[in-house]
Amino acid sequence: MNEVNTLLEAFKQTDYQVAGHGTRNVQILKEAFQSFDGQQDSDIYGKGKIIEDFQDKMANYLGKESAVFFPSGTMAQQIALRIWCDKKGIRKVAYHPLSHLEIHEENGLKELHQIETVLLADKTRVIELEDVLDMEEEIACLLLELPQREIGGQLPDYQTLQEISVHCRNNGIKLHLDGARLLEILPYYQKSAPEICSLFDSVYISLYKGIGGIAGAILAGDKDFTEESKVWKRRHGGDLISLYPYITSSDYYFDQRSQKMDIYYEGAKELADLFNSCHKVTTLPLQPVSNMFHVHFQESKERMEPVLVELYKETGIGLTSYLREINATECNYEVSIGDLYANLPKDKLRQVFRVLERKMKELI
Amino acid sequence: MNEVNTLLEAFKQTDYQVAGHGTRNVQILKEAFQSFDGQQDSDIYGKGKIIEDFQDKMANYLGKESAVFFPSGTMAQQIALRIWCDKKGIRKVAYHPLSHLEIHEENGLKELHQIETVLLADKTRVIELEDVLDMEEEIACLLLELPQREIGGQLPDYQTLQEISVHCRNNGIKLHLDGARLLEILPYYQKSAPEICSLFDSVYISLYKGIGGIAGAILAGDKDFTEESKVWKRRHGGDLISLYPYITSSDYYFDQRSQKMDIYYEGAKELADLFNSCHKVTTLPLQPVSNMFHVHFQESKERMEPVLVELYKETGIGLTSYLREINATECNYEVSIGDLYANLPKDKLRQVFRVLERKMKELI
Repeated sequence: MNEVNTLLEAFKQTDYQVAGHGTRNVQILKEAFQSFDGQQDSDIYGKGKIIEDFQDKMANYLGKESAVFFPSGTMAQQIALRIWCDKKGIRKVAYHPLSHLEIHEENGLKELHQIETVLLADKTRVIELEDVLDMEEEIACLLLELPQREIGGQLPDYQTLQEISVHCRNNGIKLHLDGARLLEILPYYQKSAPEICSLFDSVYISLYKGIGGIAGAILAGDKDFTEESKVWKRRHGGDLISLYPYITSSDYYFDQRSQKMDIYYEGAKELADLFNSCHKVTTLPLQPVSNMFHVHFQESKERMEPVLVELYKETGIGLTSYLREINATECNYEVSIGDLYANLPKDKLRQVFRVLERKMKELI
Repeated sequence: MNEVNTLLEAFKQTDYQVAGHGTRNVQILKEAFQSFDGQQDSDIYGKGKIIEDFQDKMANYLGKESAVFFPSGTMAQQIALRIWCDKKGIRKVAYHPLSHLEIHEENGLKELHQIETVLLADKTRVIELEDVLDMEEEIACLLLELPQREIGGQLPDYQTLQEISVHCRNNGIKLHLDGARLLEILPYYQKSAPEICSLFDSVYISLYKGIGGIAGAILAGDKDFTEESKVWKRRHGGDLISLYPYITSSDYYFDQRSQKMDIYYEGAKELADLFNSCHKVTTLPLQPVSNMFHVHFQESKERMEPVLVELYKETGIGLTSYLREINATECNYEVSIGDLYANLPKDKLRQVFRVLERKMKELI
């Protein structure tokens, strides 16, 4: 019997889920297009009102001169780094060892662009100013991922960001923002998107994380940069004849959720507190700095899964559909707070943690 | 005053259009999803029923072991060629000088994959067996585009295809089909898709040409090949979290139109005859071998545009929204017959050609 599927199946049967915006089903598209005018012309290979209007809106929101819609962040970011490498004539960039480019893209940056990488900091913490100052290699671009997802969504101090930005400008290093979750960190920094983006030469944001669209990304920067990115977008096979299914839904959910990041952030802090008050449970970071964090159980995946399955059955509330094994005595999963959290009655929330605490204590 | 826009505007005002499936607007998506179950789960990074079912259906339709859905043909074809190059350890392929890869992809094959190209045949005709036999360079893969779009959609004899296929197999050259319009040529060859695909090691088809979907492509071949293509799809940034907006609409329009290619083909032949009976008008090819052909006017673009604008106003029927200048005495445009042709009353069709003939004769 497959325990993972058991957990997933039990999760699917719950009446309430604590995190996320809800199931990624086709209804997300249907809702976005329900009241959208069918007579609106498609975008055609990057041209047309439907794509240009949204690109302008995003450029304005990020405080950048220009923005380009991409089918994926993988494509957008490789291209950003390639452009900066070509501009400097050096095929080398620096980023965190757990960057999306390093661990989730099948080495596209190296295989398609022959770009070497310098890994800064170690896998347990974010990049600090010292890491950048100590770097001996000459690089074309430094990529910062805010928040650093694979370590629970951690952030450097804002002052560190400013200092890194100044250092890069003074040393001819382009600074690129992997802002897949940029909107999600604005409440913590208490900054606007343009304030943060002004520290970077180029910025990528995702449209299906906190925004909850279907797919898609924005790459923003100066006009010269974005125009060059369109050429590479075509080379990558991303200049589709029609991208409107993603654009229109991104726009719809952006309007619905971009103002709710404060709520998600407050929810994440509240929920993390509840986890941290449980026996053998901690969150990373202890206090979230965005809508996300990781939940770590000091138990094996094998032992935790039946606990969660029983918890879901007893309470009708689902925490997660999966667990990741870290080692023989620890497992974890990722939380991203979305619309569902506010829908969960507070007594239900207290109930699930009462039951979880009891079950964790029952484990030998 | 912009003459191109005048022609486009006049075209948009017409009651009937002769070619195509109709305006590429958002209604195409809305119609495809209207009766589709919103509770259906999204595909997630290439997995899930919605993508796997369609890939199986396409593999079966093409008679190949396996098929992968790609956001674009540009991405799918570069990847196919890269895989064959890596397999042979030679970064060189051959194709027609007017191949999509050569003229529409900003040199992605060279810039991203460092693949050199050998151009076979010349720009006025299709690749023949002799071109392949005479090739001195060692290549990993030969790409054939059927029909050769940029010369009006021309085809080699079926026997030529068979001979090229045998030669490639005997000489360790992989044969790749750019079948963007594969379905559209089946009526001419009087062959099934699997019969034609059996001549090729890998096959790409488009889902928004004759099929009329929103965007998307299928790459098919042996399982080893398609599995490797998924790795490259991720590297290219094409492994989107959700591709279902394209998949579901492709499936919907495939079911609606894949059986109508005969009708489109017959329409194209009829329409080409009408053009060829006009003064100063010829088609390329003279007799279409698919649903497509080019219309050549032996007049400058500048002189032809007002003729067409008047024709549209007088008849309410639109032939084309644009003209391409070839030289000072010739211009052309592309026709692809789709659903609209059958909706055009025959007396309207005769009327438009009566008026066109009169206007062409009126030109000095």
